Amino acid sequence: MHRRRREQVYQWLDHESVDAAYVTGDAEIRYLTGMPSDSVLVLFRTGRCVLLPWDVNLASERAEADEIIPYTEFDRKLTDALRAVLGDAAGPGRRVEIPADTPHPSLGDIRDAACGAEVVCRVDGLTGEISRMRSIKDDSELALLGRAAELTNKVIDELDEALGAGSLESELDIALFLERRARSLGGEGTGFEPIVAGPSRSNGIHAFPAFTGARFARTGSGIIDFGINFDGYTSDVTVTVLFGEPSAALRRMTDLVQQAYDESIERIEEGVDARDIARRVDTVFERAGYSMPHGLGHGIGLEVHEAPWLKSSGEAPALLSRGMVFTVEPGLYHSTDGGVRLENDVMLTADGPTIITTSRILRYA
Amino acid sequence: MHRRRREQVYQWLDHESVDAAYVTGDAEIRYLTGMPSDSVLVLFRTGRCVLLPWDVNLASERAEADEIIPYTEFDRKLTDALRAVLGDAAGPGRRVEIPADTPHPSLGDIRDAACGAEVVCRVDGLTGEISRMRSIKDDSELALLGRAAELTNKVIDELDEALGAGSLESELDIALFLERRARSLGGEGTGFEPIVAGPSRSNGIHAFPAFTGARFARTGSGIIDFGINFDGYTSDVTVTVLFGEPSAALRRMTDLVQQAYDESIERIEEGVDARDIARRVDTVFERAGYSMPHGLGHGIGLEVHEAPWLKSSGEAPALLSRGMVFTVEPGLYHSTDGGVRLENDVMLTADGPTIITTSRILRYA
Repeated sequence: MHRRRREQVYQWLDHESVDAAYVTGDAEIRYLTGMPSDSVLVLFRTGRCVLLPWDVNLASERAEADEIIPYTEFDRKLTDALRAVLGDAAGPGRRVEIPADTPHPSLGDIRDAACGAEVVCRVDGLTGEISRMRSIKDDSELALLGRAAELTNKVIDELDEALGAGSLESELDIALFLERRARSLGGEGTGFEPIVAGPSRSNGIHAFPAFTGARFARTGSGIIDFGINFDGYTSDVTVTVLFGEPSAALRRMTDLVQQAYDESIERIEEGVDARDIARRVDTVFERAGYSMPHGLGHGIGLEVHEAPWLKSSGEAPALLSRGMVFTVEPGLYHSTDGGVRLENDVMLTADGPTIITTSRILRYA
Repeated sequence: MHRRRREQVYQWLDHESVDAAYVTGDAEIRYLTGMPSDSVLVLFRTGRCVLLPWDVNLASERAEADEIIPYTEFDRKLTDALRAVLGDAAGPGRRVEIPADTPHPSLGDIRDAACGAEVVCRVDGLTGEISRMRSIKDDSELALLGRAAELTNKVIDELDEALGAGSLESELDIALFLERRARSLGGEGTGFEPIVAGPSRSNGIHAFPAFTGARFARTGSGIIDFGINFDGYTSDVTVTVLFGEPSAALRRMTDLVQQAYDESIERIEEGVDARDIARRVDTVFERAGYSMPHGLGHGIGLEVHEAPWLKSSGEAPALLSRGMVFTVEPGLYHSTDGGVRLENDVMLTADGPTIITTSRILRYA
């Protein structure tokens, strides 16, 4: 499958008359070669690739590439590596595409290393193309995300049971419980640092620090936002927990979030513009005098935030397509009433949308 | 202290005839305002700053700035925010400095937002200046790093005791032990995801995944690399653990690493070029037929890797100065013999260098 993905890149290079390109993102390189970290991958229009890993021991176990050269041979200097590796793809009359996130001040040195080749740096170049490819999951990716969701659902149930029994006392207890279960169940780990915000901190969008040693107080609302990474692919869910009888304000926020969530899920289908779903949520919240400080959702995969983006403000239509896997996560945060967010993961296939995770608002006495 | 640091930036802006600048890095913004995450900070030559935080609840608790405007008011679009905030500092005849890591393709939109002001994007501009400022710690920073080191040393001793008693069985057990102790002792957390690599994985520079659910086997060499963050400032140490009688190869690697470490520590003093210390380590290892795939050390502070950089390959002299706090971490990694790294943190003050952490090579039967 890595080879098939690389073939698609080679075809794109050919179509765009690009002789060589390189990528530096961990997720992009894992997608194309299996190598999970700290590398540069150079791809040639001729259908060949060279991987430059920092850690050659790791590369020899994991990476699939036509040639592997230790990045340390070039002292991990990108321009030195390019000078050595580009070969015929550099020089006058050639075209070299570089990542869209290349810092502006480094362009000069990269141009030098390309020895007169045209250096192309654009948002909608290869960076955009790989992002588009990754936004439509292939079968192996759907299977991995399905496994990540299964593990997540098991952990949500365990969490529910433990919270019900009162056996997890602090934010720290909850966060470490999630990390332990993620790895014990065969995951690569949690997909990102879990956010465990007790009632005094649930007003944060992404509470800082993500969790503390303090007690997870059993009053008001708490937010637990986590993912489980299975073989590189991560889920992303948020569980809101309510203790006791919620205040009128909190009940209203909870109802609004649940309504926004239900309406959003109902509208998901192939061909729908995600902006419209997100705009409807904005309307529901605005009418009630609230506003949501973040997007409605985002793609998940090798990264926890990737295309597609479900938000009201996009300039171009964001059409939902089969193969996409993304979160739906309406949330409201009030400085004193606290926060409420409900987040699940949706997989859109030929059979329509499936909510693959089972997060919900949990209530305890 | 945040104000004093901002004053230094305003002076720099004035000296460079820059009317306004913005920074986006979490560590830079925490350094200048106390706000720890997800913000943009706009600084004006006139001695004023505007903070644009994503999370206003968090900002109201933590941030010190002349004005705070929710970034969501601009839909978290940088150019929209600049258009609204730059005011008199934009327009013809003005000069606006932007971060050195600004992606090349976004320059056009930023120029538009600056309405004819000259837009300056350079490695050695404000980004470099703040990095230089941060490389020389002030008294409050030295105190926080001292506290981080104290907690780290306590945890190293506890780890030693637990490993001796055999009470931590898996990589996961060790990693969660570190996280629990970091937060229980009052730290903000571990400073980065701990790397806990049992003997089968200690050949990795930064083992991937950082830790697994597998047993931490009690044979050969294992590597435990972690830091404790106290109020934003992190330590960074590596403990190598040896079980039983090491093989001849492993003993040789251990002796070489210890020798490189001891010689490096001995050479640290004000005014010394860190490249020379690192080059000496390269020589020691090369003579023995080894090579080290990473630098000798790096500054620590609000980020776990920051200036100064102790490596042999720098183009300019890297003179050690009082106020610097940095790691010394020689390491060797062999695909089958395993890995050995010894890393401690050094604080260089008027009284000379002090090794503030107490990591060492731990040996068990």
